[in-house]
Amino acid sequence: MALKLYVDRLSQPSRAVLTFCKVNGIDFEEVKIQLAKGQNYSPEYAEVNPMKEVPALVHGDFKLFESHAMLIYLASAFSGVADHWYPADLQKRAQIHSVLDWHHSNLRRGSATYIFNSLIALALGRPLNLEKAAEGEKILIASLAKIESFWLRDDGPFLLGNSQPSIADLSLACEVMQLELVETKDRDRILSHHNRILKWVEDTKSAAAPHFEELHSLMSPAKEKLLSLKSLATKEAESHGKLA
Amino acid sequence: MALKLYVDRLSQPSRAVLTFCKVNGIDFEEVKIQLAKGQNYSPEYAEVNPMKEVPALVHGDFKLFESHAMLIYLASAFSGVADHWYPADLQKRAQIHSVLDWHHSNLRRGSATYIFNSLIALALGRPLNLEKAAEGEKILIASLAKIESFWLRDDGPFLLGNSQPSIADLSLACEVMQLELVETKDRDRILSHHNRILKWVEDTKSAAAPHFEELHSLMSPAKEKLLSLKSLATKEAESHGKLA
Repeated sequence: MALKLYVDRLSQPSRAVLTFCKVNGIDFEEVKIQLAKGQNYSPEYAEVNPMKEVPALVHGDFKLFESHAMLIYLASAFSGVADHWYPADLQKRAQIHSVLDWHHSNLRRGSATYIFNSLIALALGRPLNLEKAAEGEKILIASLAKIESFWLRDDGPFLLGNSQPSIADLSLACEVMQLELVETKDRDRILSHHNRILKWVEDTKSAAAPHFEELHSLMSPAKEKLLSLKSLATKEAESHGKLA
Repeated sequence: MALKLYVDRLSQPSRAVLTFCKVNGIDFEEVKIQLAKGQNYSPEYAEVNPMKEVPALVHGDFKLFESHAMLIYLASAFSGVADHWYPADLQKRAQIHSVLDWHHSNLRRGSATYIFNSLIALALGRPLNLEKAAEGEKILIASLAKIESFWLRDDGPFLLGNSQPSIADLSLACEVMQLELVETKDRDRILSHHNRILKWVEDTKSAAAPHFEELHSLMSPAKEKLLSLKSLATKEAESHGKLA
């Protein structure tokens, strides 16, 4: 059965799903849905994902969205995926579900709120909201502290102290990588003292080499473009005597 | 192996987990962690759940938190749970994961933000935040519209058009029931035109009878207490010339 992945590589859950398939040799067709062009709002895409978000998949007649659900489905439906990505053992699997569930209201919420309102909104023609960005940053900082102090452990380099990565490592590491889009001084202020997290992201990158790094190659040009938009918006706002 | 559930029946995910165990005849000890008394911040409870939230479980030596992960674990680890709660079929299971993942950033986020900031904060000695409550209400209203138009279908009475309930029905229905805590006029404004949702909640209640209703019996006295706290706070705020 043919597998189609509907993705925008600038979306962190899209990169997690793409990385997973490439690392595990799962054949797929990549259908690019550019959020910055509003392609997720087309009537055609609403047939794939009525929530109008990426990523989503179509596998034969089967449609699915929500990246964690997709990662679990892909790990289960395709043969040849090593057990460590999504263990058959009920308790190991439950811990991975726990990390993934925690992610939604913590790391994802903080990171997405912070980055959207301090930067990405501009690419969608919307104003920045520095108050909301600050709220997001607070959640993001608390979440990174929990990763450093709880989800990463001495037993092994990956989340939950595992010796090999799971789908949770891909999902959360791609989220942390989203900080590559913001100004270096902001990224460093938030992340640079978290040595354990930085090492874990590097370990995840190595375990998913070369795909993880290749799929993040568009971060640097995207950052340049976003920061020039921000610079323009800031100048405009200053000339109007207010901050965007 | 002994199963302990650490819960506060005023927390919607706690009620979902309790209902699931009772409906499926899973024996457990209920350990009450009263959020209003800050019992979730005790050092003893941090050993159970370092995130200091309810619900959590201990099963023998195994500890787990995050209610969706718990529901999946309980449905998988205990024999005698009917397949419809968490189907073995990969695609049916994936759809349930999709609903549960969607829940986090939509219905749960909207409902929890709205109810906490418009009411429950007072029970924790914190001020109301009507701006945040309004933000939450907006997400809640959009989420209810998606349940009515997408997750509920003509094929059957439960989410995804299923003929029997899944763990997703319990989780989301307990979330909607949280609106029983707010003033009747607010609850009606938000919910009363959603006939399909009201019918689905009733169907879920019937499918999980008598436990679902029993576990919600504390909602009415809790509502009275919260509304009298709110009335007091409003009077105090008015006497200081500002709204809390």
